[in-house]
Amino acid sequence: MKKILIIGAGLSSSTLIQYLLDNSEKHNWIVRVGDVSYETADKKINDHKNGEALKFDIFDEEQRNTEISKVDIVVSMLPARMHCMVAESCLKFKKNMVTASYVSNEIKEMADKIKAEGLLILNEIGVDPGIDHMSAMQVIDRIKDIGGKVTAFRSYTGGLVAPKYDNNPWNYKFTWNPRNVVLAGQGSAAQIIVNDRYKFIPYHQLFRRTLRTEVLDYGEFEGYMNRDSLKYRGLYGLEDISTMIRGTLRRPGFSKTWNILVQLGATDDTYTLDDSENMSYRDFINTFLMYDKELSVEEKIQTYFNLEEDSGVMYRLRWLGIFKNEKIGLKNATPAQILQKILEKKWKLDHEDKDMIVMQHKFEYELNGQRKRITSSLVVEGTDNIHTAMSITVGVPVAIAVKMILTGHIKETGVKIPLNKEIYKPILKELEDYGIKFIEEEELVD
Amino acid sequence: MKKILIIGAGLSSSTLIQYLLDNSEKHNWIVRVGDVSYETADKKINDHKNGEALKFDIFDEEQRNTEISKVDIVVSMLPARMHCMVAESCLKFKKNMVTASYVSNEIKEMADKIKAEGLLILNEIGVDPGIDHMSAMQVIDRIKDIGGKVTAFRSYTGGLVAPKYDNNPWNYKFTWNPRNVVLAGQGSAAQIIVNDRYKFIPYHQLFRRTLRTEVLDYGEFEGYMNRDSLKYRGLYGLEDISTMIRGTLRRPGFSKTWNILVQLGATDDTYTLDDSENMSYRDFINTFLMYDKELSVEEKIQTYFNLEEDSGVMYRLRWLGIFKNEKIGLKNATPAQILQKILEKKWKLDHEDKDMIVMQHKFEYELNGQRKRITSSLVVEGTDNIHTAMSITVGVPVAIAVKMILTGHIKETGVKIPLNKEIYKPILKELEDYGIKFIEEEELVD
Repeated sequence: MKKILIIGAGLSSSTLIQYLLDNSEKHNWIVRVGDVSYETADKKINDHKNGEALKFDIFDEEQRNTEISKVDIVVSMLPARMHCMVAESCLKFKKNMVTASYVSNEIKEMADKIKAEGLLILNEIGVDPGIDHMSAMQVIDRIKDIGGKVTAFRSYTGGLVAPKYDNNPWNYKFTWNPRNVVLAGQGSAAQIIVNDRYKFIPYHQLFRRTLRTEVLDYGEFEGYMNRDSLKYRGLYGLEDISTMIRGTLRRPGFSKTWNILVQLGATDDTYTLDDSENMSYRDFINTFLMYDKELSVEEKIQTYFNLEEDSGVMYRLRWLGIFKNEKIGLKNATPAQILQKILEKKWKLDHEDKDMIVMQHKFEYELNGQRKRITSSLVVEGTDNIHTAMSITVGVPVAIAVKMILTGHIKETGVKIPLNKEIYKPILKELEDYGIKFIEEEELVD
Repeated sequence: MKKILIIGAGLSSSTLIQYLLDNSEKHNWIVRVGDVSYETADKKINDHKNGEALKFDIFDEEQRNTEISKVDIVVSMLPARMHCMVAESCLKFKKNMVTASYVSNEIKEMADKIKAEGLLILNEIGVDPGIDHMSAMQVIDRIKDIGGKVTAFRSYTGGLVAPKYDNNPWNYKFTWNPRNVVLAGQGSAAQIIVNDRYKFIPYHQLFRRTLRTEVLDYGEFEGYMNRDSLKYRGLYGLEDISTMIRGTLRRPGFSKTWNILVQLGATDDTYTLDDSENMSYRDFINTFLMYDKELSVEEKIQTYFNLEEDSGVMYRLRWLGIFKNEKIGLKNATPAQILQKILEKKWKLDHEDKDMIVMQHKFEYELNGQRKRITSSLVVEGTDNIHTAMSITVGVPVAIAVKMILTGHIKETGVKIPLNKEIYKPILKELEDYGIKFIEEEELVD
């Protein structure tokens, strides 16, 4: 019997564990699930006869080495910065490894050693990164195979609330790490190329420079730019492409309103407010506005940003409760931490709510003197609050990859991401059985 | 004969060296001036019989120790980060030291040892920091002495071009480190308190939230906020003050226009542009603007920021030459480095130009049920391109402090800044002989 070790049994591991347990009898697998909380791991095993839960502490080197030495493959579902510890033990005991995270610099540096040992660390095989790579490469390779030249690639992904449960004026709820949502886009300027011209968008313009798109019959979305879209030219073999944009999807109006919070400085995570504990939310917002004897906090925002009281932006801000005289109750918090606390109350996914993953690629290409556009769209709604769309779209491709490595269908070695036909084709095909299916539309570009 | 070692003979040391040489015969001093360039040091000595020039390499520990061991006091006019090396040698050979820079963390950590040895490191005794501390403390102490309570303190300083030579639409030329001007305000939000309310202003709002003030008969200026004004409450003994603001002065219209460059992202120093060498200035600005088939770069800026073609803002931007099709010619440069290159051409102080230091404090206080305001203003124009206003206002207070330490009139020990009456009073008095004299106006506040 082959043994699989999954480290980390949080929300995004649910479907991954389920898939591997469901396939364990057929393939003769033992699925070991380690988590800091034994209970969490045990719950996910749900008394399955091929499952084993264990309390696992990633910082306990001895346990890490012992457990990894006993299995055939390791899946790290830990926070990205912890993968390198797992990778070191995998190298030591010559085990293959799979993650859904971006290749970190630490792991990149291990590439030669991993390759030399004939091992594989397969990364970026979740949803984003993961399904985005594979679905994009499938269309790009197909266009190239028929002799076409890709001239533009625009790609967007968003984790949102499913339409039926989309009942607040932001049309957004947290379906993923709230802190990452609050800090999204901070750091270096977003880099894109548009009609052969480089474009750099600093954080404080990011939420003003969105693009609109319609996805299937799900209506309109807006995308704000992700970090560095330029490096994907090399990865995808599109070195000479004229337009390359990657972005994050939200519902219309979100970014315009979020931009006000960015402009105020309420997303800043670089300093703490000394007396944040005793401030009210209203005081908090007021710290970012000029002193004025006459105007209310709301009126100051309206005046400063030229907003009408009855605008969607002001409505969304008021709905958050940021103008309430309620105590913050967080000690020495940064603006971003205070804002996160406010948002967590209002953007909470209720027990019966379902989430939704939306992904769309738009390819423009030239073939035989014609310019064409392929729009490839994916929408996945969650099944319930365990098998969320996020958990399904992250977990199923990871699980399929684990299966393919154990059954010898993936033979690559080194530090890899799923860009090759041999990997993405069977995975995308099987994903369709799980409702993860792209809908393509093709049209002539005028 | 007592020996003084001055390390660093750049522009801001000119007046300092001159003062010490002028006073050297009366006090029996030898003034040694060390610089990486012997020529620079020798030029400043100008054949004075009590002066000695030497080639000095701060990174040469042996030379540093030898030279410092031979003298009675050391003045470090090096870049701020290098002071700690000088301080270590001063501690080793038990020498006093003077700098015009902010107390660094490294020097702060040496405070106990310096004190234990009965030594003094006097910092922040230039213009800003320096004259600002002393002139503010003089008024604050006076108000306290007569039983008044200071309720508001607003303080601004600016290094500008003198009115006679103020002949460009920005009303600004570089009289100080250009890189610092380009990066001004980046980092954490500016922190002030206004009528007992904390106010935090993020970088991307800094140049929109300026305050106007008139200085003597020099007309109107605008001030943008400096970093952390709050910590000055403790330093100045104004713990309960309701309003505390420190800012940097520019001429009206500067900040509004600079804000456009900030909003574009042209002051960003966190990433480099791969092909900056072959870009034109017009391409550079265009990278920050949306792609548009129809609109020119100028029209895109006007549309995006809602500016009229005939506005002062557009005039100042055009005047910089940022819309020219001229090659940048800088390899792998950051946006900030490219912008600096553009500005250095246009904001260059000509040989015959003179600079100007403007400082203004506004104190509000309560006394016997009355509310009063004292406005204390200083304007110093440069004498020529050697003895600039910057060199005079930095150098003279440093020089006076050196004299007072050598003659035993300053007896303090430890790591200090000039906040005590015993230090600031004689220095401010002598500064008046050098044209550094504050003009006070007092009025009732209605």
